[in-house]
Amino acid sequence: MAGALTIALDAMGGDHAPGVILDGTVLAREQHPGVRYLLFGDESVLRPAVDSRPSLKDCVTVVPAEGVIDGSMKPSQALRKGRTSSMGLAIQAVADGTAQVAVSAGNTGALMALAKFVLRTLPGIDRPALVTLLPTRRGESAMLDLGANVECSAENLIEFAVMGAAYARLVLGVSRPKVALLNIGTEELKGNDEVKQAAERLRATELDFDFVGFAEGNDLGEGTADVFVTDGFTGNVALKTMEGTALLITHLFRRAFRNSVMSMLGYLLARGGLRTLRAHLDPNTHNGGMFVGLNGLVVKSHGGANAAGIASAISVAKDLAQGDLNARIAEDMALFGSRPAVEAAEAAGS
Amino acid sequence: MAGALTIALDAMGGDHAPGVILDGTVLAREQHPGVRYLLFGDESVLRPAVDSRPSLKDCVTVVPAEGVIDGSMKPSQALRKGRTSSMGLAIQAVADGTAQVAVSAGNTGALMALAKFVLRTLPGIDRPALVTLLPTRRGESAMLDLGANVECSAENLIEFAVMGAAYARLVLGVSRPKVALLNIGTEELKGNDEVKQAAERLRATELDFDFVGFAEGNDLGEGTADVFVTDGFTGNVALKTMEGTALLITHLFRRAFRNSVMSMLGYLLARGGLRTLRAHLDPNTHNGGMFVGLNGLVVKSHGGANAAGIASAISVAKDLAQGDLNARIAEDMALFGSRPAVEAAEAAGS
Repeated sequence: MAGALTIALDAMGGDHAPGVILDGTVLAREQHPGVRYLLFGDESVLRPAVDSRPSLKDCVTVVPAEGVIDGSMKPSQALRKGRTSSMGLAIQAVADGTAQVAVSAGNTGALMALAKFVLRTLPGIDRPALVTLLPTRRGESAMLDLGANVECSAENLIEFAVMGAAYARLVLGVSRPKVALLNIGTEELKGNDEVKQAAERLRATELDFDFVGFAEGNDLGEGTADVFVTDGFTGNVALKTMEGTALLITHLFRRAFRNSVMSMLGYLLARGGLRTLRAHLDPNTHNGGMFVGLNGLVVKSHGGANAAGIASAISVAKDLAQGDLNARIAEDMALFGSRPAVEAAEAAGS
Repeated sequence: MAGALTIALDAMGGDHAPGVILDGTVLAREQHPGVRYLLFGDESVLRPAVDSRPSLKDCVTVVPAEGVIDGSMKPSQALRKGRTSSMGLAIQAVADGTAQVAVSAGNTGALMALAKFVLRTLPGIDRPALVTLLPTRRGESAMLDLGANVECSAENLIEFAVMGAAYARLVLGVSRPKVALLNIGTEELKGNDEVKQAAERLRATELDFDFVGFAEGNDLGEGTADVFVTDGFTGNVALKTMEGTALLITHLFRRAFRNSVMSMLGYLLARGGLRTLRAHLDPNTHNGGMFVGLNGLVVKSHGGANAAGIASAISVAKDLAQGDLNARIAEDMALFGSRPAVEAAEAAGS
């Protein structure tokens, strides 16, 4: 990983591609000079788009790709038809070592399927997971899994804890992250067997993160841990419930403000403050989820991200690539004494 | 159930008992004259409390009970020591037929354990569930299970759908409720086996409610169905995530308003409208969850409910008792052709 960092961008994925991907890259270039970009997609569209953004000329290489994976394509179709798409080639660039990390705002299911197929799972990791950042009262926390695995064993949950801690260290910059298991109560007796067994093993192992035990749904908004670990079914429902509740309440607020002329006047006066609130909840400021547990880094941007959102996904990608996430995961998994994990730590040479 | 409706009240359960229970009863008496109340608890406290509220004199009977189940008592302890507590005797009154429904704001785990032990499960129902009302963009919806069952089979989910529909009919007053299964995507291929099998059987059965397929976490706030069905683990996490997110956002709003003198002035002007919002989110207006699937009705109030909250739990209890919830559940379960359910429908004589 000596020399310049290279990031592979799926230029055609997402609701506002390719324009927003290019504009996001312009912003990212200002923040992180020296990073290079491979831009995968339709050459006839991308080349003039790069030419019209002079700051990109010396840091971007356009790489032609065939076709786009649209939002409705199933994972199985993506595997059959999508290997040479902009998304497929961006992931392939990571596998080939021509880029250190890929970023895509495209179809999540397709991205997961292609990333798993092309990159394969890290030694010592049974199941990769989807992790993202959440806005909380204290700032930001990470949560995983968000839907890659609908049913999870205690071992899977332990892997998620290790991978989430490594992610939080790099992306949130916390040296010793607090990691909690999502449950339906904080007492040891509560929950299903998987959660109880995972907690028992995490408590019994000397870790380089703080396992703080169980957390409940309301702890997500409170931000009582840096990392919340759960199975993909619960995590997906919890994340979407947060989004839905945020929409519900902002809708009700708007209605409340329209209630009377006085309220409307109040709204106009409070607008400045409300902008701060919107910024805190804006998914663009918490952009850059990823699939952890693969032999290579793939960052998933929100499909509807704006240019600032794409730039923040690129920042996350840069931090992850420079931080050697996977070597940390392998080291931490070795603490649980599983053979492949120990080998992985040795192979990672750290 | 001829003659006056009698409601058994656990006068000692909840954060503000017994005062708030009595004040709630005063409000309920204004709304529903003719209902009678059995008030279970410490006689030396309750009798003067009733005497000081003249409107209660002709509708309340104080029944002495030994001890209180506090918030920290485990379900197993409640079963051993709590049978003659105010909570235990209120449930027993339903089993004996001296009351048609019990209301408690006490310890949820203890209430569930005692209610299951004393009342037993309805014929045809394998597992009782905890159901509650949620505030949504369209008004209110019901969700179950909320933690009574951490692992659920497809059959359990079907039972929850039937019980939830019967509850929504009586409490929300919807004649043909829309019922959805919570999942991680709306396509048929998504989710775990239990959810997929339950959906398949619900689709294949002619029901007297509308099964609308899968819903996702964000549908809870949107209120796209009248009833959301899920396992107790996911339901508990989702409910608490909603509560936590609501707190997070109202906290951020408050901070936004304190941002500047202009914002504060705006807040003062908008206060009227914001009060409407607070009322919509106030748990007291959505009070009256219950354990469905038992041979008797037990309504669970929020522990921190105020007098209006207790009155709304009493209203829910009244609607349920007068609506013959359990006969409806038995009838609907019979549509799935299971033997005990058919017998139950016949026994319910409808």
